[in-house]
Amino acid sequence: MIEVLRIGQRVVRDDRVTTHVALVARAFGAERIFMEEVNPRIKGTISGINERWGGEFEVEIIRDWKEVVRRKKGHSKIIHLTMYGEEVDRAVRRMGSEDALIIVGAEKVPREIYEMADYNVSVGSQPHSEISALAVLLDRMQDGRQFSKTYGGAGRRIVPSSNGKKVVVEK
Amino acid sequence: MIEVLRIGQRVVRDDRVTTHVALVARAFGAERIFMEEVNPRIKGTISGINERWGGEFEVEIIRDWKEVVRRKKGHSKIIHLTMYGEEVDRAVRRMGSEDALIIVGAEKVPREIYEMADYNVSVGSQPHSEISALAVLLDRMQDGRQFSKTYGGAGRRIVPSSNGKKVVVEK
Repeated sequence: MIEVLRIGQRVVRDDRVTTHVALVARAFGAERIFMEEVNPRIKGTISGINERWGGEFEVEIIRDWKEVVRRKKGHSKIIHLTMYGEEVDRAVRRMGSEDALIIVGAEKVPREIYEMADYNVSVGSQPHSEISALAVLLDRMQDGRQFSKTYGGAGRRIVPSSNGKKVVVEK
Repeated sequence: MIEVLRIGQRVVRDDRVTTHVALVARAFGAERIFMEEVNPRIKGTISGINERWGGEFEVEIIRDWKEVVRRKKGHSKIIHLTMYGEEVDRAVRRMGSEDALIIVGAEKVPREIYEMADYNVSVGSQPHSEISALAVLLDRMQDGRQFSKTYGGAGRRIVPSSNGKKVVVEK
């Protein structure tokens, strides 16, 4: 089981990026995202996506991210995504099969995260986006298998097509 | 050589997402991004990143995206990222080694793109983000080699580290 913890986002300014982080978590096989503060519309957006596209991905609003990390520590491996971290392929090879909590920061994160994490992981050593970093980490951890996952109860389902849109309406 | 064409973004509302798309293009080995309308700050942001982190990634402002596609067609394979497309792994296996132009749309794209493209490619069949979709496509096309690329003339360079920040100042 993989969960994601989003920290450090600034409400309004980071809302769209945080929404994309949540969508990546959902589409790349995580079960839940924890967020401290949040524009309530983000939760509604994700519920609407579940309704339409299936699955039971959860947005859980929390008060204190440190409490979440402490609660998970020892049961789940704590992975902190940072451009300063160890190379993703090397880190993933060292990881065991226990559950994972992936911490996705915004621009600034408190330094203590580096100590609380079991793995500080980078996706390349160039600046890009927490959205792409999360996607590549989840892809590497699951070796691409996340794209074969089925999302139960979907209202519609896409049939991959090389030249148009094919959508099956399921209910 | 890989280039990216960003279309359909709404100025202001999509500025941060477009900036992240440009940063992913740069960090995942593309040489250039073409954009129609753009907040001039995006160009400045990317110049600042090149100055600090190296390389010569270019932002080219265009008037007409169709003209860019027509100019490239035949020399570069035209790849359109869409959640309705053919599965990325299957598409990448079919691709030749010629240059590539990757079209990254925002929410709505004109239907004719599906016809203009040589490949309509999806990264999973669930909604997520054009930022993560571009990252995974570039990763698959280059088989992870983009992360070994060096960025000449960098003012600073990160040394990957499992427990803190190591930055070498180069000039």
